[in-house]
Amino acid sequence: MSDFQEVTESTPKVQVNPYGPNPSDFLSNVQNFQLIESTLREGEQFANAFFTTEKKIEIAKALDDFGVDYIELTSPVASEQSKKDCEAICKLGLKAKILTHIRCHMDDARVAVETGVDGVDVVIGTSKFLRQYSHGKDMNYISKAAIEVIEFVKSKGLEIRFSSEDSFRSDLVDLLNIYKTVDKIGVNRIGIADTVGCANPRQVYELVRTLKSVVSCDIECHFHNDTGCAIANAYTALEGGARLIDVSVLGIGERNGITPLGGLMARMIVAAPDYVKSKYKLHKLRDLETLVAEAVEVNIPFNNPITGFCAFTHKAGIHAKAILANPSTYEILNPSDFGMTRYIHFANRLTGWNAIKSRVDQLNLHLTDAQCKEVTAKIKKLGDIRPLNIDDVDSIIKDYHAEVSTPVIKSKKKSSDDVDEIDISKPAAKKSKLSE
Amino acid sequence: MSDFQEVTESTPKVQVNPYGPNPSDFLSNVQNFQLIESTLREGEQFANAFFTTEKKIEIAKALDDFGVDYIELTSPVASEQSKKDCEAICKLGLKAKILTHIRCHMDDARVAVETGVDGVDVVIGTSKFLRQYSHGKDMNYISKAAIEVIEFVKSKGLEIRFSSEDSFRSDLVDLLNIYKTVDKIGVNRIGIADTVGCANPRQVYELVRTLKSVVSCDIECHFHNDTGCAIANAYTALEGGARLIDVSVLGIGERNGITPLGGLMARMIVAAPDYVKSKYKLHKLRDLETLVAEAVEVNIPFNNPITGFCAFTHKAGIHAKAILANPSTYEILNPSDFGMTRYIHFANRLTGWNAIKSRVDQLNLHLTDAQCKEVTAKIKKLGDIRPLNIDDVDSIIKDYHAEVSTPVIKSKKKSSDDVDEIDISKPAAKKSKLSE
Repeated sequence: MSDFQEVTESTPKVQVNPYGPNPSDFLSNVQNFQLIESTLREGEQFANAFFTTEKKIEIAKALDDFGVDYIELTSPVASEQSKKDCEAICKLGLKAKILTHIRCHMDDARVAVETGVDGVDVVIGTSKFLRQYSHGKDMNYISKAAIEVIEFVKSKGLEIRFSSEDSFRSDLVDLLNIYKTVDKIGVNRIGIADTVGCANPRQVYELVRTLKSVVSCDIECHFHNDTGCAIANAYTALEGGARLIDVSVLGIGERNGITPLGGLMARMIVAAPDYVKSKYKLHKLRDLETLVAEAVEVNIPFNNPITGFCAFTHKAGIHAKAILANPSTYEILNPSDFGMTRYIHFANRLTGWNAIKSRVDQLNLHLTDAQCKEVTAKIKKLGDIRPLNIDDVDSIIKDYHAEVSTPVIKSKKKSSDDVDEIDISKPAAKKSKLSE
Repeated sequence: MSDFQEVTESTPKVQVNPYGPNPSDFLSNVQNFQLIESTLREGEQFANAFFTTEKKIEIAKALDDFGVDYIELTSPVASEQSKKDCEAICKLGLKAKILTHIRCHMDDARVAVETGVDGVDVVIGTSKFLRQYSHGKDMNYISKAAIEVIEFVKSKGLEIRFSSEDSFRSDLVDLLNIYKTVDKIGVNRIGIADTVGCANPRQVYELVRTLKSVVSCDIECHFHNDTGCAIANAYTALEGGARLIDVSVLGIGERNGITPLGGLMARMIVAAPDYVKSKYKLHKLRDLETLVAEAVEVNIPFNNPITGFCAFTHKAGIHAKAILANPSTYEILNPSDFGMTRYIHFANRLTGWNAIKSRVDQLNLHLTDAQCKEVTAKIKKLGDIRPLNIDDVDSIIKDYHAEVSTPVIKSKKKSSDDVDEIDISKPAAKKSKLSE
């Protein structure tokens, strides 16, 4: 049988933040990442999205205020109004750089460079699937088209990104060849895209690490969420040395979307709290999500990171007890960083006497621990029969309190207003613990 | 400038499924995993959850029918009814094994073994946070309590799992010590739990790989989703050699929940299609999610993998074109595997002429490619002004069709019923492509 050392709760010596970047990731950009916000491009491809010019401008301003580095807009060749909207947003004078996203074709590039954007994101499918069924071109053609478009955009003094589409189903040698080519002629960044949402985190890490050994420019990543890995893939890409992540508000995009801005914030604040808090206005996240959710007529998912209605709700008795003693026991995110508040759900049959005791204190009543346990048993009994609300619990507590206090009142002939003062040995109300 | 080889679209020789298990993961259980379904335990800790006995039984039967390996139930000491419900579900004679989840304490264990369960899941907090603020015990105490409970449960002939809580914030040496101890005395499996949702995929892989070198029993993993990585962490755990994953329907649980059953199915079917399709009734996923969503009064999130309303909706013109030629271009999941259907969203300004041409065919009308492009331009123009619905697009197409067909009708004096037959050189309707 093993013999454990006495528990010593000293501060860890090696690493300040155990959830921070892995020291073995010497190329990591976890603490130095940038966001390309694509609600107004990828997000416009969401089934429900129709943004008027006014709504686009409102969203662009809110994104800029939040602190995103880039705002990506729908191609100006998508429709006449798309072009006008692109030009209008370029004229807003935002801090964020404005990009537009086009096919790797001179027809598109010539229109894009005239809109006033700061940069152009160029994309072409490189997988066997897309080469065969989408544009029908081979890698030689792709290479030539890429060079022509890149040289042209550069000649206009604009930023240029070259991205393959469906990178994770493309031939690795083809990918490395084309990226090496475009890196040599000089692009600001290359993009890899998990267009169908098939990639897994360790695959992403490997591809990014390999690319880092081939190109000197920045690497941008775009992850679809079909198999639920878009946030994790983004994080792992940064670990591998990618610098920029494509996001959209609530992840809206083609099919079930891409890496969501809010979810990525949740992931990144754990790893790089100072960087994230200094750079992004996290307390504006909820308003930003509400703005976009209303524009595309969806509800914020109940299980959304940070802003889902129960993201900071604790229910089981054992959880509630520890949270009351120290919120870090069951929280890796601090709700106040996002302007949110914590909630202890005590009106249910899984509740524990610590949560009920805290409620007793909130009600400014005084019960002993033994009495709290007894009233908890009554609450659990009713909770077995039907869903409870806070009023139910408060009634049970108040009834019980009146009951156990009655003999004292009678003997001393005090009015019921004085009941609260009977047991002065109890600690003061602990409301502050619920909102710290 | 690089010179690319001619594209050859031959079948890959090395690996049949490029999204399958990584050959370097020699301990991988990606093709041999099991599910511990915890909707009736972790899910009951979801803020909105109140399950009546009848609803619990209905959910347990549906889970069993779906094909989960284990069903985990709330501790029988949580409340009197919890105990009765546990006993009732054990008597259903389901194929799935029934587990209950208790604190690492003899008081709980004595009640649990009398309920009729097939196994007992024991948990105790091992992180500094939980040792200090939850149970207040040191590792020596934990070790002794674990041994006593494990020996007792084993003596009753039941399966036993020992899990640390908050494993990713626990001291690694403490963890390895306690797991080695319980593995030696013989447990069916050990569990690691990311109780606060802080873990990232490569961390998970490392911990699982390390544990695999210490214990010989199976490893079970439990991931909360606070930072959006619960599906990816589960997948990476299986790559590292974990065998069992805790899931719940829609991921319901404490705060924003755990690895969702449906999302994990999306991830796993990409990696291990034959295994997943042979073991789980995927076409029942939507009904199962609807059952639980209604029971806890939430909407299925708009962006839910597989069952979200737009999970198989394609919108941008470039996507629609390729999907019409071959769905694999922009789909890693086949909707028909889940009893779902694909949808091409053509009523918007991002639409392309290939999608409109497909709609023209569906309407049994005949237009040349040039005519399809012309009517597409009209549709995009209206789509710039306001959101479109299918009726809008159909009206525009029909009007345009009538317009271009009119001279023919006049010259031949045919009735409008014959219009469809005018251009017999056009291919037949391609409805089948939309539902393949």
